[in-house]
Amino acid sequence: MDYIKGIAFDLYGTLFDVHSVVGRCDEAFPGRGREISALWRQKQLEYTWLRSLMNRYVNFQQATEDALRFTCRHLGLDLDARTRSTLCDAYLRLAPFSEVPDSLRELKRRGLKLAILSNGSPQSIDAVVSHAGLRDGFDHLLSVDPVQVYKPDNRVYELAEQALGLDRSAILFVSSNAWDATGARYFGFPTCWINRTGNVFEEMGQTPDWEVTSLRAVVELFETAAGKAEKG
Amino acid sequence: MDYIKGIAFDLYGTLFDVHSVVGRCDEAFPGRGREISALWRQKQLEYTWLRSLMNRYVNFQQATEDALRFTCRHLGLDLDARTRSTLCDAYLRLAPFSEVPDSLRELKRRGLKLAILSNGSPQSIDAVVSHAGLRDGFDHLLSVDPVQVYKPDNRVYELAEQALGLDRSAILFVSSNAWDATGARYFGFPTCWINRTGNVFEEMGQTPDWEVTSLRAVVELFETAAGKAEKG
Repeated sequence: MDYIKGIAFDLYGTLFDVHSVVGRCDEAFPGRGREISALWRQKQLEYTWLRSLMNRYVNFQQATEDALRFTCRHLGLDLDARTRSTLCDAYLRLAPFSEVPDSLRELKRRGLKLAILSNGSPQSIDAVVSHAGLRDGFDHLLSVDPVQVYKPDNRVYELAEQALGLDRSAILFVSSNAWDATGARYFGFPTCWINRTGNVFEEMGQTPDWEVTSLRAVVELFETAAGKAEKG
Repeated sequence: MDYIKGIAFDLYGTLFDVHSVVGRCDEAFPGRGREISALWRQKQLEYTWLRSLMNRYVNFQQATEDALRFTCRHLGLDLDARTRSTLCDAYLRLAPFSEVPDSLRELKRRGLKLAILSNGSPQSIDAVVSHAGLRDGFDHLLSVDPVQVYKPDNRVYELAEQALGLDRSAILFVSSNAWDATGARYFGFPTCWINRTGNVFEEMGQTPDWEVTSLRAVVELFETAAGKAEKG
């Protein structure tokens, strides 16, 4: 792995658990939290893809709010302004997956440049990462906002290359979203898919270079490679 | 409605029922037909959007087959080559919604130019429409294939304007897919959403000009307008 000099991480669903909003949804609509969270996430993604294709970008906070409105209307739930605001704010305080803080420190300690490359707005990314106390671990927080289009458009992946000042072949892209990992691999990043929940990969003509079950396993990839290099 | 000189129809889900494959799916995987059909359609759409964003077009038959592979792997179902072929072929013999043949004849009789504007490949569109005996009713069968990108990219909607030789303001766009109706309306088509199943419209900053529950109601829009014009 010594050709890898930097890592670009997806944020939502990869480092942070988007379904950590289930509790908040359940408080607002008892017994419906899981259902709301699942459809909300699905629609949030669809709106980023569709708006990109229509060339009608709105930022991620807006797309997230729109998706919540749709979700509640679809489920026949009355969403007042206060609840909407509470639930959208929950997206700014997502919880990181448990192994994430320690694993990021390990990767940083190895001298790798670390970047977030996210659909989020600059404000959302900063809020989520800062709330978890992880802001200092990253060299770059990269939002799609400057290019006004969402993943998996190549213009987004290019942002990481530019910011890290590295060729794409030297940047490991890490995502739990199989469609994002597919886009990254077509772009030319060596790509690791974190598959925490036993999903199957997308059928779009790519497979990830590595498939692991947690970020801890990404650290181990580097440790194993370093161990081999020492022995060799 | 006398400013409307032509109609562009979406095909899948609008004139033809994509869930008419449920029976075939149920024969192959007893008791699982509905579940397979729903996820298959969802993934089929996702793959068209994602491949468009990645600039990695494959035709609709391929995207449909890929989506079926994903669906069966996701559901833990063993999809052999023969079943795959049987189910994909079912997509070439979808059933039209019951009111569609008569309604199309009525619209044609009014001197409107009629076109299909579909994500399907030229072969798929021709197969579906011919199988239902509706080929002669259309002036144009328009596939996304020449532009190698899927709806809701504007380049697709432009195909209808070019083929019909009409300004977009003179073309009624008819779709049951709310995201497609949204894209068409952003493009500038007067747009009718056929909402047969009590869905809610997407939250992407547009609403349809007309919302109806069947294609028969589109005929009635023209009849009512003509009646008013006579009286006036």
